[in-house]
Amino acid sequence: MSKCIVAQSGGPTSVINATVAGVVKANQLNPIYDTVLGGLNGIEGILHEKFVDLTNMSEEENRILQQTPASALGSCRYKLKRDNVEDFEKLIKIMDKYDIETLFYTGGNDSMDTVAALSEYAKEHNITNHRFVGCPKTVDNDLMHTDHCPGFGSAAKFIATTALQTWLDVNVYTRQEVFILETMGRDAGWLAASACLSGIVDVLIVPEVPFDKDLFLAKVAACLKEKNKCYVVVSEGARFADGRYIAAGEAKNDGFGHVVLGGAGKNIEEMILESGTASRCKVQDLSTAQRCHASEQSLVDVTESFRLGMSAHMHSANKEFTGKMVGVRRRDINEYDVEFFAIDASEVANYVKNFPTDWLLANYSGITEEAYNYMRPLIEGNPLLVMKDGLPAYVKPFYMR
Amino acid sequence: MSKCIVAQSGGPTSVINATVAGVVKANQLNPIYDTVLGGLNGIEGILHEKFVDLTNMSEEENRILQQTPASALGSCRYKLKRDNVEDFEKLIKIMDKYDIETLFYTGGNDSMDTVAALSEYAKEHNITNHRFVGCPKTVDNDLMHTDHCPGFGSAAKFIATTALQTWLDVNVYTRQEVFILETMGRDAGWLAASACLSGIVDVLIVPEVPFDKDLFLAKVAACLKEKNKCYVVVSEGARFADGRYIAAGEAKNDGFGHVVLGGAGKNIEEMILESGTASRCKVQDLSTAQRCHASEQSLVDVTESFRLGMSAHMHSANKEFTGKMVGVRRRDINEYDVEFFAIDASEVANYVKNFPTDWLLANYSGITEEAYNYMRPLIEGNPLLVMKDGLPAYVKPFYMR
Repeated sequence: MSKCIVAQSGGPTSVINATVAGVVKANQLNPIYDTVLGGLNGIEGILHEKFVDLTNMSEEENRILQQTPASALGSCRYKLKRDNVEDFEKLIKIMDKYDIETLFYTGGNDSMDTVAALSEYAKEHNITNHRFVGCPKTVDNDLMHTDHCPGFGSAAKFIATTALQTWLDVNVYTRQEVFILETMGRDAGWLAASACLSGIVDVLIVPEVPFDKDLFLAKVAACLKEKNKCYVVVSEGARFADGRYIAAGEAKNDGFGHVVLGGAGKNIEEMILESGTASRCKVQDLSTAQRCHASEQSLVDVTESFRLGMSAHMHSANKEFTGKMVGVRRRDINEYDVEFFAIDASEVANYVKNFPTDWLLANYSGITEEAYNYMRPLIEGNPLLVMKDGLPAYVKPFYMR
Repeated sequence: MSKCIVAQSGGPTSVINATVAGVVKANQLNPIYDTVLGGLNGIEGILHEKFVDLTNMSEEENRILQQTPASALGSCRYKLKRDNVEDFEKLIKIMDKYDIETLFYTGGNDSMDTVAALSEYAKEHNITNHRFVGCPKTVDNDLMHTDHCPGFGSAAKFIATTALQTWLDVNVYTRQEVFILETMGRDAGWLAASACLSGIVDVLIVPEVPFDKDLFLAKVAACLKEKNKCYVVVSEGARFADGRYIAAGEAKNDGFGHVVLGGAGKNIEEMILESGTASRCKVQDLSTAQRCHASEQSLVDVTESFRLGMSAHMHSANKEFTGKMVGVRRRDINEYDVEFFAIDASEVANYVKNFPTDWLLANYSGITEEAYNYMRPLIEGNPLLVMKDGLPAYVKPFYMR
């Protein structure tokens, strides 16, 4: 018997910790490893030997961990570069030193690239005593091959709920009004599209469809003419036909070479006001809250995230299980249900699954029935929350202990 | 027997409809009136004789109405001016025409002024067959005499929850980071202060304390030095010693002569970045969502809002009960409980109850234990939501039917 380590990378979600809770619980029920370590701040912390022991987590802590948003183990944006041999050597040395057999890494496509790179490196160097397993998580829902990503359902539920409620708010006055809801989604329109689950969206702007200002303004004008109100949802990553982001004025750069966006909503507001299409606009940028509003988790989402952790743990009993990501597959039955499967992490790494353009209605009018039917089950159910002093109880982050 | 009418004014809250549900339910249990009308879009709609009949609302619709945010009857910002005799005459004529005995008006201090003005007008003209009753509602919690305002507790709960969850999010990386949460609160700091219920706020900026840029930046710098992170909460109405709003760059005007604010958070971010106090800031403006996020209502808040409606209805059985607002009084016992009482609407109208400065810690450091103990019971409990298709069920606004 030896150890496994679980670590988290990339941007938080509302249910990211449920996967960790699943790994821990699985090992309590079926102890493949004698110790389950948590690696603090992803690969960055593991390279500095920053661990905590999660093996004997109490049932209560496990339960509350599942409802705690953001990475309880801390996260990082540190990317293992394939030509940085030192990092690879160091990591293997640390795993040897602590007798760590398996690394479970939760994250998006950058993290799956880390999993792929590590397993390739091990293979090239005939290292057979270490396994690297990826667990998908991203509110963006843009990973290939998996039906969807844990984290998306809860974000979608919060976004659709907020769309519905702000729509009720913006309608109360008789005056003309445009409301603009801005969601995350750097490259893919999943989160923006999820607002359509509310049934109230008039105009949907996603990165997958080039933004045509004139067409858009005409659409808003027609909507206002019809009902004096217009509810617009825009993805932060929406862009013009020439590739320029609507939010271009505020483009910055993060460590991964991604463009950090913000301001698509504000820029669209300006277009509407400047053109005289409407004289009154409100913008709500959902910002950080949409990826960590765990008090409104979808029960389906948090349960799947937990079960995915259990499944990853179980898969890892196979000594040859490495370089894989555990994904979610929708079972081909009438009632919604899923099963978990494994796929090479290299097939997921660095690809983006866009929102299907044939799931979009023409003229920014929203989504098709098929898209609705795909997303609808993912937001189902409200977990019973453990409360403390009127607020959702949470586990104190391990990196703060 | 005759009719009563209930109408809503001003900005929505998460529980504003529960007061309407309470009036309707009270009249079903104890039929003082043979008809309960809903006036659409406040005084504005009543002056155009826009009513709906709520008398026989089903139990199910009543239940779902209580969890529906924003004014289901529609709202207005139309202010009855005391010198506009025409409006007064017209309103009384309409009440005579439809045999409307009592008008229940939910709103903030402008609405209480409407209640006071109408009852004064009636008194001056020896009109004794009409009564005007105010029901407080405002997320701002800034009405005098009532212990607190229905709507505040749920907004406070959403704000504190979001503060807690975004704080967990912003801590996951090891890098230095400042997070700025902007709340509503044009004149009073109640909503900003409520974020402190989360226990994680480092810096609190409210309108009640003049903003000193140097002092503030020194505070942020000290906080970053200590723990590399700083969580700031700022009220939209925060201002400098000379009265200028921090958000001044974006000041506009609404119908009531209030300054419409936005951008305090962004402007503070700029101060932090420009001064080099930190190189990384994130801003989350809670915007419209904070006043209508009814999926996280406080059970205490929604229950009180409902009971207040019932109490107003009961009070109105007294034919001399007019020009009054029904308020909430905290009972002087150990366990939290309230009773309802009546006060002249004129004593509430056009005053603002500020957040007590002796409930604020020095140097922007947050709130005292006393403030915490005051707010803490108001966010208690989660009502069981009726769900539909994965989202909170809602009543279709009456003005859309």
